[in-house]
Amino acid sequence: MSNYTKTTRQEGARVVLHDSLSLTGAEISVNTLPAGGSVPFIHAHKANEEIYFITKGRGKAVVDGDEIPLEKGDWVRIAPAGRRQFFAAADSDLSYVCIQVRAGSLGDYSAADALV
Amino acid sequence: MSNYTKTTRQEGARVVLHDSLSLTGAEISVNTLPAGGSVPFIHAHKANEEIYFITKGRGKAVVDGDEIPLEKGDWVRIAPAGRRQFFAAADSDLSYVCIQVRAGSLGDYSAADALV
Repeated sequence: MSNYTKTTRQEGARVVLHDSLSLTGAEISVNTLPAGGSVPFIHAHKANEEIYFITKGRGKAVVDGDEIPLEKGDWVRIAPAGRRQFFAAADSDLSYVCIQVRAGSLGDYSAADALV
Repeated sequence: MSNYTKTTRQEGARVVLHDSLSLTGAEISVNTLPAGGSVPFIHAHKANEEIYFITKGRGKAVVDGDEIPLEKGDWVRIAPAGRRQFFAAADSDLSYVCIQVRAGSLGDYSAADALV
């Protein structure tokens, strides 16, 4: 079996990558909230850390009641227990990648895990 | 302790996020290869799956000798054993995010891991 998989994401569409890329260590979603919009619920996780990468636009996250302003280029890590909700700005879409991984699962990495 | 961490990446700089974001389930790097440039070595991994997200430009990956054309919006997963090397096109930079996670580490995810 091939050691790689590839997919291309069309701009603007919500995409989840776990199945299409045969991921085994992460789920990744690519998302856009329209101006004035939000994820319609607050959520936390049992076991998974989430890492958000803002790829376009502006908005905010609310984590445990704290407001975190967000714009293109920002990265945010949220521990499983953090109660989170994401909002686009009133006058700007907010596009982001959400990477979900098991908290504490990473062992060695980079040079310590590499075979060159 | 807070359930979140945030950082902002300046365009063009190489950044590794594990320490600055206190990641526990991934290492993430943000990279740009200049036009005509490449990662100067082929590598594989012992335990980690890598997921690459092309954020700008064009280039290619070579995995186990196969050429994979890359452009903005592409996602590629590479199994630990895949022998990989990345190249920018002769006439274009290649910017990408590399997400490193332990292969097989994800348990439940999304709704099955969520607390709403």
